[in-house]
Formats: sequence, C-alpha cells, structure tokens
Amino acid sequence: MNDLTTYIKSIGEKTDSTLEKLLPASSLYPQSIHELMRYCCFAGGKRVRPCLVVAAFEACSGKSAGEDVFKAAAAIEMLHTFSLIHDDLPCMDDDDYRRGKKTAHKAFNEALAVLGGDALCIIAFEVLAGIGKVEIISEIARSLGTMGMIGGQVVDIESEGKPVDKDIVEYIHNNKTAALIRASINTGAMLAGATKAEIDKLSSYGTHVGLAFQVVDDILDEESTTEQLGKDAGSDRERGKATFPAVMGLEQSKLYAKDLIDKAWEDIEFLGNKGYYLRELAEYIRVRIF
Amino acid sequence: MNDLTTYIKSIGEKTDSTLEKLLPASSLYPQSIHELMRYCCFAGGKRVRPCLVVAAFEACSGKSAGEDVFKAAAAIEMLHTFSLIHDDLPCMDDDDYRRGKKTAHKAFNEALAVLGGDALCIIAFEVLAGIGKVEIISEIARSLGTMGMIGGQVVDIESEGKPVDKDIVEYIHNNKTAALIRASINTGAMLAGATKAEIDKLSSYGTHVGLAFQVVDDILDEESTTEQLGKDAGSDRERGKATFPAVMGLEQSKLYAKDLIDKAWEDIEFLGNKGYYLRELAEYIRVRIF
Repeated sequence: MNDLTTYIKSIGEKTDSTLEKLLPASSLYPQSIHELMRYCCFAGGKRVRPCLVVAAFEACSGKSAGEDVFKAAAAIEMLHTFSLIHDDLPCMDDDDYRRGKKTAHKAFNEALAVLGGDALCIIAFEVLAGIGKVEIISEIARSLGTMGMIGGQVVDIESEGKPVDKDIVEYIHNNKTAALIRASINTGAMLAGATKAEIDKLSSYGTHVGLAFQVVDDILDEESTTEQLGKDAGSDRERGKATFPAVMGLEQSKLYAKDLIDKAWEDIEFLGNKGYYLRELAEYIRVRIF
Repeated sequence: MNDLTTYIKSIGEKTDSTLEKLLPASSLYPQSIHELMRYCCFAGGKRVRPCLVVAAFEACSGKSAGEDVFKAAAAIEMLHTFSLIHDDLPCMDDDDYRRGKKTAHKAFNEALAVLGGDALCIIAFEVLAGIGKVEIISEIARSLGTMGMIGGQVVDIESEGKPVDKDIVEYIHNNKTAALIRASINTGAMLAGATKAEIDKLSSYGTHVGLAFQVVDDILDEESTTEQLGKDAGSDRERGKATFPAVMGLEQSKLYAKDLIDKAWEDIEFLGNKGYYLRELAEYIRVRIF
C-alpha cells in the first residue's frame, strides 16, 4: 500500500488529465470562456473531493478506480470550482486572490466569471450524465441546491457582520462545505455498488470530515499569513464572517476538529483495513493545523 | 382539437402547477432564496418552451402529456429563468425590468440573484434526474453549455458596441436562444420515443423556430413601446447589441422571420395532422410582429 502523499499525488494527476480531456480546448470558440474555465480548474486546487470519491470507491469495491470514477471526480471538482468562482464575485465575498492567483473576475471580467461558473456547473452535469447513473446526479444536485451548498452560502452572506451562534455556523458549514464533500464520498460508494447501510455510515463520515475541513479552514484563516494561504488571511474576521473560532474561540475549535475526525474514524470502522486511505485522508485534513 | 390559445393556456397552467410542486416553499429556510426563485419563475413568462416540449411529445407519441413530460417542461422553464436572471445582472445586460416587474437583483439583491440563478439551474437537473433518462440530461446540458446558450451569451456580450455581420448575429441567436428551444423540442420527442430520423427533423424545426423567435424579439425591441414589452424598448440599439434589424434592417428581418417559419413547417411535414399544434406554435411566434 502506498503512503498517503503518493496516493493523493496519483489521484490529483489522474483527475487533472481527466479534466484536461473533458474541458473544452482554450482554442475553441468562444475562446475567452474556455480560457477562464481552464484557468480556474487548473489553479492549484488540492483535489480533496476527487481523493474522497476515489478512496470511497476503492474502499467499498476493493478495485482500482477506473474511467467513470475519475469522470465523477472531475465533475465534482468542476462543481467545486464553479462555487468558488461565484463566491469570489464582488457581490459575494469580493476576493481578489485565490490559491495565490487572481480570481476569475479579476483575471478576466465579472460577466465572464458569472458565465464561466455557470458553464462549469452545466458541463459537470453533462459529464455525470455520460456515466449513466441518474441516482448519482440526484445525489450531487441535492447536495448543491438550496438544501445544501447554495443554502449554506445564502446564510453565510446574510449572517455577515451579524451576531451568530454555533448552530448557525454549523448550519452554514454543514451545507456550504460538508454537503459536497459528503456527496463526493457517497458518489464513490454508489459507483462501487455499496449497500444503503454502508452509504449511511460513509455519509456520516462525510459530514464529520466536511465539518472538520471547514473548522480547519477557519482556524487557518486566523493563524496563517496571506502568503501561506494564497488568499487574504484574517479576511473572515475583518468581514465579520460566521466562523467556528468566532463563536467558540481558537482552542475549542481545534479540539472540535479533533473530535470530528475521531467520529469520522468511528463511522468507517466497518471497513477495516479497506478504510486505510479514508482514515488517512481524515487525519490529513486535521493535521493541517497542528 | 382545441384552438391554439386554449392549448397554450392549458399547458401554461399545468406547467405552473408542476413548478408549484417542484420549487421549495417560500416558507422554507433560507426563505430569501426560495422567495426569489418563485418570484422569477412566476413572473408572467409565456411558457413557450414548455409548450414546445408538450407539443413535440404529443405529436410524436399520439398521447396526452403526463407527469414526466410536465416535469421536463418545468425543468426547462427553470433553466430558462436561470439564464434570464444572470443575463439581467449589472455585469451583463444591467436590466431593471423584465416582464413589467423588477429584475431579481433589483427586487432582492445581486448576491441572491447570482445564487438564485445557480439554484434554479441545479434544481432543474435534480428534476430531470428524477425522470430517469440520462440521454435527456445530456441533450439539455449540451444545449446550455459553451457550445450552446452560454456560448451565445459570451459572444453577445463581447460583441456589444462592435461592428458585427449576419454570421455573428446568427451564431449568437442560434446558441443563446435557439439551442434551448431546440432542446425543448428534442426532449418532448425523446420522451415520446421518437426515432433518430424524426428527432433530426424536429431539431431542424427547433432551429428555425428558435431563430425566428429571436428575430421577432429583436424587431419588437425596435418597434414596440416599453409598456407593451414590459422591459426597456429600444435598449438593444442603445447598447449597440448585435441584432438582426441592426445587420439587415427591419423589413428584411420580417421577411427572414417569415422564411424561417416556412422552413419550420417544411421540417415537420412528416407529422401530417399530428403536427397541427407545432405548426400553429411556429405561426404564433411569427405573427407577434405583424
């Protein structure tokens, strides 16, 4: 069994080559939007969601991920990128940098950023349709809609600068971040033909890992420099964003992240040795802060 | 056989009641985005695309449209509404009124308009997945992407205020408007189990009707008052938009619309009497200007 770093690197490379094949060429008319889509999809993302799709598939099936699994992983990465492009817009978080590069509306323009996000959302569904399983399209669409990612984003924006409690922060992050992470894991499990009972446990793992991911993100925003983050550090606090450190303090947030990862490990005890990479990925998400 | 007005009215009512069931309730948290989605979907649209879905289904199957056909029709209307919300944004066409009502970003705010458009796009794919036919999801996604609606919108925006020829205007309208109209007809035909040869002819009908629809829209923008249109009349010319009247003049545009509808009628000769409503719908689109 490879170590986690090798595993992550290999999945990242295969996701990139799949994206390379699926995204329209930059030379294709109208070029500007295709350039934007590729600029944003190849901006140095960590490919966390593709890793979770693949690891869930491999844990449940005992097989190596093939073309369809990587197509699903690439589609989910497109959907994640779509959400980042729209989140960064002037009318939303108004961010100039992301992963150390100019955001889409800064590198191109605002109209093209809106349309490029839309196009990534649409092509992702086209790719998912090509896999041929409607239940996966339903699962992913539900995780993105107003009962999922978009709902979380709405409450996030509407809570800015207002006093919020832990319930609101949990609502935001459970929907804005954890919903698509959960859907990534469920997609891998569904492609592997996992049972309903297995998917339920993996869903719970997804919720715990997804929340932990966001707690860590919030902590990093407080504790890191702009250079380390590739985006403006401390910007959450400046904008009065609803974050875990804001409602429970930094130390409690760190303990909470640890607790969430412990729970994620419990969720996948049933996988035994097959759960190795899923456990390691959960730990990898946590240790970013320690 | 009912007359066209009765037919259109009945489809509009059934589409509305389907949308009513499929859209999240305004009382559901987070309320603001659900209010926006309903505000935009029930803003008095003519339901042209649902009429084409239903008429194509009934012409090809000889049966009355049932629940799945109306679900597809409602999903396509959601996708059309998503495109209008984003088109109206300040960074795009910057329109304050649509169908006599304030546009989404004016009635609510810009962030919510971006997210509400996104949410309508996403829920539409969820609804389509519920019908269970991936080939319909592929067809509709292709028609919306950068080789379809979004591509047309990009070129439309990038052509503003620049000299354009008829080829560019045709490209814009064939993609921005005709692509989803064509997909609507193809969806109806696919739900009816039409053959490849039949779908090809209906696709051609869709292209002709879709282009005619946009030629007529351009003419109305020139010839009508703001009150008649429910949006700013003459705004295309003011903004230097690429329109048919701008490249071929008003009289030629009217002749072109007539020619397109004649061709649409030829495309569906094979349907005989079963093509009655599709012929009438094409004519209905043309006579708006005469």
